Amino acid sequence: MKLATLRNGRPDGALVVVSRDLQHYLPADGIAPTMQAALDDWDTVEPRLRDLSEKVETDPSRLPFDPVEAMAPLPRAYQWADGSAYVNHVELVRKARGAGMPETFWTDPLIYQGAADCNLGPREPIRIADEKLGCDFEGEIAVVVGPVPAGADEAAARDSIRLIMLVNDVTLRNLVPGELAKGFGFFQSKPQTAFSPVAVTPDELGEAWDGERVHLPLLIARGDEAFGRPEAGSDMVFSFARLIAHVAQTRPIGAGGVIGSGTISNADPAVGSACIAERRAREMIADGEPKTPFLADGERVRIEMLSADGASIFGAIEQQVRLG
Amino acid sequence: MKLATLRNGRPDGALVVVSRDLQHYLPADGIAPTMQAALDDWDTVEPRLRDLSEKVETDPSRLPFDPVEAMAPLPRAYQWADGSAYVNHVELVRKARGAGMPETFWTDPLIYQGAADCNLGPREPIRIADEKLGCDFEGEIAVVVGPVPAGADEAAARDSIRLIMLVNDVTLRNLVPGELAKGFGFFQSKPQTAFSPVAVTPDELGEAWDGERVHLPLLIARGDEAFGRPEAGSDMVFSFARLIAHVAQTRPIGAGGVIGSGTISNADPAVGSACIAERRAREMIADGEPKTPFLADGERVRIEMLSADGASIFGAIEQQVRLG
Repeated sequence: MKLATLRNGRPDGALVVVSRDLQHYLPADGIAPTMQAALDDWDTVEPRLRDLSEKVETDPSRLPFDPVEAMAPLPRAYQWADGSAYVNHVELVRKARGAGMPETFWTDPLIYQGAADCNLGPREPIRIADEKLGCDFEGEIAVVVGPVPAGADEAAARDSIRLIMLVNDVTLRNLVPGELAKGFGFFQSKPQTAFSPVAVTPDELGEAWDGERVHLPLLIARGDEAFGRPEAGSDMVFSFARLIAHVAQTRPIGAGGVIGSGTISNADPAVGSACIAERRAREMIADGEPKTPFLADGERVRIEMLSADGASIFGAIEQQVRLG
Repeated sequence: MKLATLRNGRPDGALVVVSRDLQHYLPADGIAPTMQAALDDWDTVEPRLRDLSEKVETDPSRLPFDPVEAMAPLPRAYQWADGSAYVNHVELVRKARGAGMPETFWTDPLIYQGAADCNLGPREPIRIADEKLGCDFEGEIAVVVGPVPAGADEAAARDSIRLIMLVNDVTLRNLVPGELAKGFGFFQSKPQTAFSPVAVTPDELGEAWDGERVHLPLLIARGDEAFGRPEAGSDMVFSFARLIAHVAQTRPIGAGGVIGSGTISNADPAVGSACIAERRAREMIADGEPKTPFLADGERVRIEMLSADGASIFGAIEQQVRLG
């Protein structure tokens, strides 16, 4: 089942069910008005949405789905916690700035608390005030969970996963060092996050979903350049189950919480990177200086994932940088 | 105008208007079903809620208001950003651990990104798994804002303030050093946050509200002990307008965002503290070791603010610690 949220002038948009090929949709307002409403009552709502998702494959009343009209599947979310599950990425970035890697980073998940009150749709521009901020993309996967009690174990965490999405965790790299030095984590360095046109139930991934990891490459393009195609199932040191359990260690997670994987990254440099910072880190390590610039006004970023038979699973995040 | 959210079995509860003396309420469901719904359409909803707030002072159909039935005014919020506006507190805590104070801490607001998907009502227990986590209260003030565009200046930030509440920003102190060492800020050290029975419009504070600061003492009790009564208007280095503008520097804030002041703290030690950590810091500086223990199972915390004529403005946060 594939779900999307279409713009309707309201902050939460309107929930729709989208066909497997992403070409058509049917409104779900008779079942649940918004994605959050569906997640709040998932057990009763899900079977009815599944009936509608059968219907959308053939029903003559179905309408053409245009990702330009899509908001983020959750235009605003009550929880957005983003991990650094691909520890290879963390090690590379630290190595490039001459910082060692605490051994515990391989065993204790690193997660930052984000905000998700104004998420971007898949085709909305990345607005930045100044190129000097060092605007970067980060290609990630995120899961949406049902309610998770405080102290939940990994099995309960795994069972809480309702939906899967792609993410562009936009980051203003040149604000990061100053913010981390203050000790309270990222803040202004994390502007609005963008999400894929649809969120899908795990069964849509077939064998590529093992219950806590996605085993497919994420395709990242910068303009016309294929920037990276890291395999999301490799080198993901902390599974989504582990990340969710970490988030819920001392507090519950409400229905609709969004948990991100962090920038997807493989140890193999041949697959490229899911963010500019990682390529710059490799350049720094190899040549003593980074060469790849951060995003400039007008540049385009595309993030997508294809199934084994080449079909787009989530639709593409396609964003353009706009100054001012 | 005083607003509250009563439990109704749904995640967002039911919006009610409460009388000035906190003794009675009238349901607001004919106007807006929930606090978030009211904030989403504030310009049209506010005048109608104000009419109801006149009515609740005398209307024979009004019902008795019981803070035990209250959820947090926003049981879940899309944005919870908590400042450290009382820089005195930061300096004391750093001094106690032998850390210097960067001069920029007096000019550049320190804010952490929190999560607010499962806020606690004013009388809900503080559930912790183990006393060894070092459970502490933090008495604070928070404002609820309307939509704030990215890059808003302080004047626009000031105009965005819709409501004011009290906060108990519960903190697990013994998890803080490890998390800050990881570099990504607080996470498991910040469990669920509790809020006062009502949120009030700024006019309810009369002359105690200057447009960006509250000029009244916050009363904090630990069991039967008067633990602190710091003046919230003194030593607040960064006003709410400044904090909001900082949050909105690189991203908008959606309607209903909650911005906290951080632990209220005065330079004058005679007023006591709004959290245990600050008293322990003073003990450390004076005697070389902290003496005051963190909260134990069964202990009670009370946070309240009285008007100049002695009336409770927000009602009291009264929580008991419960293990397990």
